[in-house]
Amino acid sequence: MKIYADNAATTKMSKRAIDAMLPFMGTLYGNASSLHTDGQRAAEALLSARERIAGRLGCEPSEIIFTSGGSEADTQALMSAAALGERHNKKHIISTTFEHHAILHTLEALEKRGFEVTLLPVGESGIVSVEQVEAAIRPDTCLVTIMYANNEIGTIQPVADIGRLCREKGVLFHTDSVQAVGHLAIDVKEQCIDMLSLSAHKFHGPKGIGALYVRKGIQPVSVIYGGGQERGKRAGTENIPAIMAMAEALDEICENMEEKAARLSEMRDRLIRGLNRIPHGVLNGDALRRLPGNVSFCFEGVEGEALLLYLDDKGISASSGSACTSGSLDPSHVLLALGRPHEIAHGSLRLSLGEEITREEVDYMIDTVTEVVEKLRSMSPVWRDLQSGNRAYMTEA
Amino acid sequence: MKIYADNAATTKMSKRAIDAMLPFMGTLYGNASSLHTDGQRAAEALLSARERIAGRLGCEPSEIIFTSGGSEADTQALMSAAALGERHNKKHIISTTFEHHAILHTLEALEKRGFEVTLLPVGESGIVSVEQVEAAIRPDTCLVTIMYANNEIGTIQPVADIGRLCREKGVLFHTDSVQAVGHLAIDVKEQCIDMLSLSAHKFHGPKGIGALYVRKGIQPVSVIYGGGQERGKRAGTENIPAIMAMAEALDEICENMEEKAARLSEMRDRLIRGLNRIPHGVLNGDALRRLPGNVSFCFEGVEGEALLLYLDDKGISASSGSACTSGSLDPSHVLLALGRPHEIAHGSLRLSLGEEITREEVDYMIDTVTEVVEKLRSMSPVWRDLQSGNRAYMTEA
Repeated sequence: MKIYADNAATTKMSKRAIDAMLPFMGTLYGNASSLHTDGQRAAEALLSARERIAGRLGCEPSEIIFTSGGSEADTQALMSAAALGERHNKKHIISTTFEHHAILHTLEALEKRGFEVTLLPVGESGIVSVEQVEAAIRPDTCLVTIMYANNEIGTIQPVADIGRLCREKGVLFHTDSVQAVGHLAIDVKEQCIDMLSLSAHKFHGPKGIGALYVRKGIQPVSVIYGGGQERGKRAGTENIPAIMAMAEALDEICENMEEKAARLSEMRDRLIRGLNRIPHGVLNGDALRRLPGNVSFCFEGVEGEALLLYLDDKGISASSGSACTSGSLDPSHVLLALGRPHEIAHGSLRLSLGEEITREEVDYMIDTVTEVVEKLRSMSPVWRDLQSGNRAYMTEA
Repeated sequence: MKIYADNAATTKMSKRAIDAMLPFMGTLYGNASSLHTDGQRAAEALLSARERIAGRLGCEPSEIIFTSGGSEADTQALMSAAALGERHNKKHIISTTFEHHAILHTLEALEKRGFEVTLLPVGESGIVSVEQVEAAIRPDTCLVTIMYANNEIGTIQPVADIGRLCREKGVLFHTDSVQAVGHLAIDVKEQCIDMLSLSAHKFHGPKGIGALYVRKGIQPVSVIYGGGQERGKRAGTENIPAIMAMAEALDEICENMEEKAARLSEMRDRLIRGLNRIPHGVLNGDALRRLPGNVSFCFEGVEGEALLLYLDDKGISASSGSACTSGSLDPSHVLLALGRPHEIAHGSLRLSLGEEITREEVDYMIDTVTEVVEKLRSMSPVWRDLQSGNRAYMTEA
């Protein structure tokens, strides 16, 4: 059996998205800024894609900036809020300890520019409360940036409540929604979101394209300089093939979203129940307030990388944390944020399910993970220490 | 007849490039940072593409940073040189008045950060001399950035000579080679180039992908923050489909480059000879030291936009200047840099030929442009004034 269970890292492009992309590669290849018919056809396509995407987010087409992906959108959102903040001498930003590095590393760059950053702890549930945000807001706070759903453990934040609070307090609210788009309801107006980042390859669209929603009235700053594309806010020839495919993929994933989410959640819960039977394993993050396709566990006495390689051997593509940090030897900052000790954070497994996952595949994953965890433990000196009582189980604490 | 003569704006993706891209969209779609087999296949593809592209530039694979295109590469190059400059208290940059806006607008941003910028004039030939660069270098100069070939008028700069001068003087040398790659010889070692930008969609690759070459030893700074991709110098999930297509397109265009350039130059010169027969028209830039496919003219008493629309009607896709600025009402900064008066700069026409252009198509373009220019002049009050001797012809000056 071959199961791709790493959809939080990237997804397979859907046939509809590929079909939407192809005509703009070899036939309708004009530059959308050109005045001739070839260019104008591209410009019309761009306009229609912008309208479709805006419709899915509940915003105006003019509030969408196309970017090269989620990281660029996050960087631009934070840089834009910072530029505004500097103008009003408000140089405090609130975020959380378990954001994606596109947020955390941009915040580090802003700290060097004199900003003060408060990172809220997320606790074992992996959820930030509105009260925490409220308590952290200061008169000089210019931005709250909190992800909609976490990329490693899938927990969902109360973005609408945080949005309303920020609106009330006159503080900008950005949410990295890269993992949420297509799986959770989004309506930027109703949820009082000022800026939102998304990335097409997380919902069966192409890599290398994303978008930043910026509410009318907020002046975004460029991170890429050049021509006047995207109303002067993002230079570079518009990537029409990818934009068309992104619009199509977003339409596709949003169709019957609730039914698909319900089915996926059922599969997720079946998988969680099965993996919960493994002794000295622990589910990361809240069991219910999580993405429909996300399952994340830590297994004591198991080395995450070895687990992945054994699973790969059995046909299961999984991840220990986020793909963006998989080259690193440090334990996941997300799992550390939950309060997991280093030792346990090292034994993490993320299975992020695709919409087409079947019950049989879920059962195969339960059996295989159970078997591989047992096998790895049988070879592990740490595990032998634990078994013999020379060490305490962390998961019992 | 339908002729796409706007290849400097963007090109049609080649069949080889599309074929190289497709497998990585729907089948080999893994995230190159993932540890499982799907991810490792993507990582291997990435490595091979990096090697192929490095081979074409004469650099090491580790000296290539993949970006979302030429504008991002230019922005990152200048920001990197500036960061280095700041560390050594060298805050002077040399460039030219007719660079792409990706350079000029980044320089403006750097001026706000305290940098001083010298923009060299290019004169009527559209070529900067090494002597000009040498005279402008100061003890506090940290960077010379001069485009290899101009995007509007196609003139070629003496990059190897400028590179050698800069190396001798200990000043970094960056060249925006977006228009040159695939048409002119590039060997970054031999030409003493420290940083070089390229963009795939200018040579029949996909939109949304480019690269920045950064010589070993120079520490690039990020403009997009996030994960550790591109050795920490450019965050964001690697766009493998586009990168594979770029490598293939680059290989394809570099094969028999000299023969193709010779044939294209012949077509270009035939077109120039034909258009030179139109009275009160003037070729922009040096007649020989220009890109094999670039023809750029100004026609007195003609409004550029009207010319384009009439040509479009006759099946010819052309441009007045660069696509990146075509929305603007200002005359081209490039043509103004050549010393063309506003009035004449407004009557500009760029025909950028593709490799498959035929003699018949060239002749059709000559006839059509001649006819349309005549027609527009017959309707123009400016032209009537000129004819009646109430105004002087600028092109006679």
